[in-house]
Amino acid sequence: MIPFVDKLIELAIAEDIGSGDITTDNLVPPDLTGSAVIIAKEPLVLAGLETARQVFAWFDGKTVFEPTHAEGDLIEAGTTFVKLEGRLAVLLKAERIALNFLQRLSGIATHVRAYMDLIADSPVRLVDTRKTIPGWRILEKYAVRVGGASNHRMGLYDGVLIKDNHIAACGGIKMAIHRARQSVSHLVKIEIEVSSQDEVKQAVEAGADVIMLDNMDTPEIKQAVALIGSKAFVEVSGNVTMHNLKALAGTGVDIISIGALTHAARAVDISMRIIK
Amino acid sequence: MIPFVDKLIELAIAEDIGSGDITTDNLVPPDLTGSAVIIAKEPLVLAGLETARQVFAWFDGKTVFEPTHAEGDLIEAGTTFVKLEGRLAVLLKAERIALNFLQRLSGIATHVRAYMDLIADSPVRLVDTRKTIPGWRILEKYAVRVGGASNHRMGLYDGVLIKDNHIAACGGIKMAIHRARQSVSHLVKIEIEVSSQDEVKQAVEAGADVIMLDNMDTPEIKQAVALIGSKAFVEVSGNVTMHNLKALAGTGVDIISIGALTHAARAVDISMRIIK
Amino acid sequence: MIPFVDKLIELAIAEDIGSGDITTDNLVPPDLTGSAVIIAKEPLVLAGLETARQVFAWFDGKTVFEPTHAEGDLIEAGTTFVKLEGRLAVLLKAERIALNFLQRLSGIATHVRAYMDLIADSPVRLVDTRKTIPGWRILEKYAVRVGGASNHRMGLYDGVLIKDNHIAACGGIKMAIHRARQSVSHLVKIEIEVSSQDEVKQAVEAGADVIMLDNMDTPEIKQAVALIGSKAFVEVSGNVTMHNLKALAGTGVDIISIGALTHAARAVDISMRIIK
Amino acid sequence: MIPFVDKLIELAIAEDIGSGDITTDNLVPPDLTGSAVIIAKEPLVLAGLETARQVFAWFDGKTVFEPTHAEGDLIEAGTTFVKLEGRLAVLLKAERIALNFLQRLSGIATHVRAYMDLIADSPVRLVDTRKTIPGWRILEKYAVRVGGASNHRMGLYDGVLIKDNHIAACGGIKMAIHRARQSVSHLVKIEIEVSSQDEVKQAVEAGADVIMLDNMDTPEIKQAVALIGSKAFVEVSGNVTMHNLKALAGTGVDIISIGALTHAARAVDISMRIIK
Amino acid sequence: MIPFVDKLIELAIAEDIGSGDITTDNLVPPDLTGSAVIIAKEPLVLAGLETARQVFAWFDGKTVFEPTHAEGDLIEAGTTFVKLEGRLAVLLKAERIALNFLQRLSGIATHVRAYMDLIADSPVRLVDTRKTIPGWRILEKYAVRVGGASNHRMGLYDGVLIKDNHIAACGGIKMAIHRARQSVSHLVKIEIEVSSQDEVKQAVEAGADVIMLDNMDTPEIKQAVALIGSKAFVEVSGNVTMHNLKALAGTGVDIISIGALTHAARAVDISMRIIK
Amino acid sequence: MIPFVDKLIELAIAEDIGSGDITTDNLVPPDLTGSAVIIAKEPLVLAGLETARQVFAWFDGKTVFEPTHAEGDLIEAGTTFVKLEGRLAVLLKAERIALNFLQRLSGIATHVRAYMDLIADSPVRLVDTRKTIPGWRILEKYAVRVGGASNHRMGLYDGVLIKDNHIAACGGIKMAIHRARQSVSHLVKIEIEVSSQDEVKQAVEAGADVIMLDNMDTPEIKQAVALIGSKAFVEVSGNVTMHNLKALAGTGVDIISIGALTHAARAVDISMRIIK
Repeated sequence: MIPFVDKLIELAIAEDIGSGDITTDNLVPPDLTGSAVIIAKEPLVLAGLETARQVFAWFDGKTVFEPTHAEGDLIEAGTTFVKLEGRLAVLLKAERIALNFLQRLSGIATHVRAYMDLIADSPVRLVDTRKTIPGWRILEKYAVRVGGASNHRMGLYDGVLIKDNHIAACGGIKMAIHRARQSVSHLVKIEIEVSSQDEVKQAVEAGADVIMLDNMDTPEIKQAVALIGSKAFVEVSGNVTMHNLKALAGTGVDIISIGALTHAARAVDISMRIIK
Repeated sequence: MIPFVDKLIELAIAEDIGSGDITTDNLVPPDLTGSAVIIAKEPLVLAGLETARQVFAWFDGKTVFEPTHAEGDLIEAGTTFVKLEGRLAVLLKAERIALNFLQRLSGIATHVRAYMDLIADSPVRLVDTRKTIPGWRILEKYAVRVGGASNHRMGLYDGVLIKDNHIAACGGIKMAIHRARQSVSHLVKIEIEVSSQDEVKQAVEAGADVIMLDNMDTPEIKQAVALIGSKAFVEVSGNVTMHNLKALAGTGVDIISIGALTHAARAVDISMRIIK
Repeated sequence: MIPFVDKLIELAIAEDIGSGDITTDNLVPPDLTGSAVIIAKEPLVLAGLETARQVFAWFDGKTVFEPTHAEGDLIEAGTTFVKLEGRLAVLLKAERIALNFLQRLSGIATHVRAYMDLIADSPVRLVDTRKTIPGWRILEKYAVRVGGASNHRMGLYDGVLIKDNHIAACGGIKMAIHRARQSVSHLVKIEIEVSSQDEVKQAVEAGADVIMLDNMDTPEIKQAVALIGSKAFVEVSGNVTMHNLKALAGTGVDIISIGALTHAARAVDISMRIIK
Repeated sequence: MIPFVDKLIELAIAEDIGSGDITTDNLVPPDLTGSAVIIAKEPLVLAGLETARQVFAWFDGKTVFEPTHAEGDLIEAGTTFVKLEGRLAVLLKAERIALNFLQRLSGIATHVRAYMDLIADSPVRLVDTRKTIPGWRILEKYAVRVGGASNHRMGLYDGVLIKDNHIAACGGIKMAIHRARQSVSHLVKIEIEVSSQDEVKQAVEAGADVIMLDNMDTPEIKQAVALIGSKAFVEVSGNVTMHNLKALAGTGVDIISIGALTHAARAVDISMRIIK
Repeated sequence: MIPFVDKLIELAIAEDIGSGDITTDNLVPPDLTGSAVIIAKEPLVLAGLETARQVFAWFDGKTVFEPTHAEGDLIEAGTTFVKLEGRLAVLLKAERIALNFLQRLSGIATHVRAYMDLIADSPVRLVDTRKTIPGWRILEKYAVRVGGASNHRMGLYDGVLIKDNHIAACGGIKMAIHRARQSVSHLVKIEIEVSSQDEVKQAVEAGADVIMLDNMDTPEIKQAVALIGSKAFVEVSGNVTMHNLKALAGTGVDIISIGALTHAARAVDISMRIIK
Repeated sequence: MIPFVDKLIELAIAEDIGSGDITTDNLVPPDLTGSAVIIAKEPLVLAGLETARQVFAWFDGKTVFEPTHAEGDLIEAGTTFVKLEGRLAVLLKAERIALNFLQRLSGIATHVRAYMDLIADSPVRLVDTRKTIPGWRILEKYAVRVGGASNHRMGLYDGVLIKDNHIAACGGIKMAIHRARQSVSHLVKIEIEVSSQDEVKQAVEAGADVIMLDNMDTPEIKQAVALIGSKAFVEVSGNVTMHNLKALAGTGVDIISIGALTHAARAVDISMRIIK
């Protein structure tokens, strides 16, 4: 349980229930029980079981929610992956909210897995960005991990990422890195975004932990990788697609960050069926 | 201002700021001012200006946020559509959160507009569903309207939608509609989901306001439309794609609902540039 | 469970407990157990059991709360309708809050039932208004239903009600109804408030779903009813009292709305007795 | 500003606005301005101006809200007591919520004033109880003061009130008062509820600050008053009505508590008129 | 359970967990169980068990939390006072938060006990002030009681304390006390701060319940005590230390208030050990 | 503005104001204005101005709050460091809350500065721990920085710190570090706690970024420092006092962590004086 996620779930329930479910409350006897299954309607990488469970539990803590598959499992179309038992009214009210969570999170995990498959044999680390749905940062970054990729920083608070405007405000790369080093915890690494070989050189000299090559083409990237050697991690960012990913992974960089892992994922098709 | 939306914005800021922006707080003097523009990086239908404005205002109420285009405008790639002035630290901290809202909301509006263009000359009403990102219901349904389509019910509270399990629990279509009519406000219409001509007939006889034809093929839909006449609105749902939309619109139905309007939309590319 | 109601209960507990119950916390051993009953001190229509149960459960989830009567039951003075068992300190702390909820909600249900009895043989629908205690909308409208009447819209969000200022802002009745029809969900009906036969005619022609006759006298109402026929529902509002209710119900209108159902209800007398 | 009251106002706005005012948002241009007045439709003692002001300010901080009368003023039917200027859409959206606060609070103040007028020449103090609308404690007790009466304790936290179950749990009046005295702040007085002359005597001997005579008749009350003398304040409670109030006030008691001050008050009739 | 305290615990968990415990979540299997003990590392007066229990319960309601000692017990260094059993991941995540509560609360109780021991044989009442850690008022005042001292008012709401600026605003001591008496509940006492014998005399004449002698030296205090007699409680405040406490207690005053009871307490050393 | 801190301020105001300031509300006319100063009553390092400003602004956004000194300034006893102007009632209500924040935060900054002065000429970094007042993490860590020291991780979310139980659960140091490296963002460093030279060696070989020497004596520390060389940062923790700090700083370690920086700080004496 994560307080931020609990708040999102609360908000999701409040926005859908509002003043009450006027269909179910009026048509379904509150004590009628039933069973249901949740089914993948297309192949997907499963993510979001715990969140879905919390949704059903909010309506009635006694609802039985039994997954038959695990987070990260690749599931074929037509597969049942959760069995539910409880009050029918609860199953009907919670259905859409729970599915909306599962669809988005499994959608991201599935999308990420496709990228990962392209570079399965590479030591390069694929990471997300902060281009996530507002309110969903923790859940989306979790789904990225379920899909097999890694996380960049969670937010503005857990990693330093110095960009051109920060550099300008400090009067140069050296000064910017120095000031950051002085100010932040010894457990936080310092990354800097650069766009020329000269900036790469300055960043190395100033002792950056991670150097992000912004929108460089392949030859430029290779030149930067050679220049940096083992003095810092090298991240590339910008214009990464499924088409050039494998090539980029071969340039020797350590990390490739792709906003599309989250912002271009679409919901996968998941449905619930009352079987009782 | 809508309380639910205010809460989502708060959550979005909290999840990104956490214990503080350790880059900007340490590198940018708090009183340094700057200017910025927000730019479309691809053609898009603009949505989300007010939400973006709220994000910048949260950090500093004195930030100047001047849109040069309006909600619903079709904007070409490369177009600047907002001018900003204020404290540089505020511009940098709020940037990603504001863009994340704009990207998703304009992404939906743009996606919806593409559907609308396909049936521009038809009187049929295109509507969304409850397949929205949890926490985002009101914003996503707003973006659907900006894109030119209409809304189905907002949640479980503002429209009756009777499905097969409700019917089963009541012992039949007639009883279900009757019970709903007795229970809900006279301002709320009653919709029922049916999947056969026989059910259509029962729904008409029971006085349903809206009849949803679930996963019927075109001939079945036409038969149902003829049977219903002007006694109820007719909605089709399920398996609607860009390819069959125009054909469906020609069957005489009143409303076509498409979950993909929201759940399959992707973020459009929008960026902010500090121009000093 | 409804998120809005949960928040009101939380607020009610916080305002009464504050920094702690300095009488009970200091005088009653925390583990001492006891029994209690809740008793009607005057005849009443019972409403609010679930809310009262939630109050006791907040203090201690193990408190036994056993109603012997059901929501909507007419209860004689002196009747015990709930049996309680649990920690004495919990019973004493929760008592006043739980009773305050029961008193107000049963008070409304009882008040409404008196109106309903006057028109027991009429098909007319008695409805409430938005004149409810702020923070209590959902609970008060629920108690109205328990009392036997129906609800008008819940809030500004689930029904269109066009009044004179809206009409003026749109430039006429026809334009106002047209614009509303274009904008809102197909599941939401459109009601318009009119005050002359000419306006009635315009509303009918514009296709209003419900026409509210504002402060018309009986002959005017009859004339309007005749004019509208079955083309729209007819609601009367304003100056409805227990004295003219039956007469109004005989005019052929469909709906009578009465703010006094909620705003003029008084608390009924209910008390709790510790029986050890 | 009081945090508890702010929360109630927020809740009141959220429950009425929900996902948005679908009438005004669709029919009234957001920048159209207007003027309005708030009018008493019956004679009343005014209470709630500040709360009403907060409601309008929530929607738009620039709304001009100018009272022409003060809290506690006795206002004749037909009197305008607030002038408003601002965006028409804001006036329309906030109207009902603001009026609902004013109606209830002025209703209580008016009701209380009627009681006060009966004992205008008596030094006795009329006080409320904890029988208030859950969530409204602070506002209702404020309205009681506006009406001219005084407050009993605000909640369980700011005054000790020992009842029979507390006495039983402690093993007697003496022990109960002693234990309370030991435990609570020296700024908090200790009141005890008694129902016989013997208990009165024990309470006096144990040093109670206030002795509440529960459901005693007039001769018993007089006897108790004589017994207590100036050693404690004397409060009577239970079965106090407008009819016996004056007689009770003549018995020599210091304080008369009446739950009906709040729980039997009805809303007074107040309306808003747009005058453009 | 006290709503204010619940909110503080929530905040404490949120600030520490943030987006998740990246060490434990990644290294400890979620279902691995373990045992632990909580140990005093220095002699202390125990306070905060219930709060610590709530912290562990937030993470997992099934965690066994068994205190072997009670609130207020004097515990020697090296003593185990709580045994825990549950999921290892829960024990590790909750550890620091629970200890931080225990350390501070036991720290206050221990500190207070040292003051109490100095005046063990005196009838004088030692009380705290409002100089508490913001957000911790209720918990710190609770720990003061556990330590053996008493509470002054909880906040601005449950006791009148008239200071020089209030007196000036009212035009004198007499008027200030009179106005307060008129306004507040009969259960609330009125205290006034004075700094000269003349003011003492005025306060007595005006009928103050408690008179606070501000920063007077011992002879002045004795003179004031004589002047006041039994007409009011006498409180001294300001410049009270462990060195002059006993002397002050001998002056005949009733109450000695010491901000240092809370604001100068330091955390005591408490640790948790996993014993598998 | 940091959402977590805003919530703490809200809580602090709510706990002190409760149902209202019954002294000031009843004795001070709401529109009476006044001036005040905030004064150091002992030498201190100033911290908390922004938080204090927020407190006054909550009560009235127009209150003028003018610091004459800056965060981190060393201030002599008797120095005025803030000038205030506004409504007298606001100054009186906010006074204690604002001072309580200033006293604690300046208390920490002052305490930390004393440690820093002992090692002013050393390159060693002094850092805090997670032993902070629950709810105050961000503010206390901020005050530590104002005092001149640095922060360890903010919470469980922004740094990996592997302790013995984590190691045991993973089956060894190597496996624990490897698993952490795989799981967390490339911007997060990995620290491990060790207690023997053998563990130091394993930690170095496994590639730990920071090695924490737990409760080692000086010779052991020196041996570990030599063994680690420049392959990782070295932190010492445990049993650090003002007496051995300088010696520890001379052992060649990079970081010394001291829980006492926060948990043993006491409030410094600060007061407000109304100067009319």
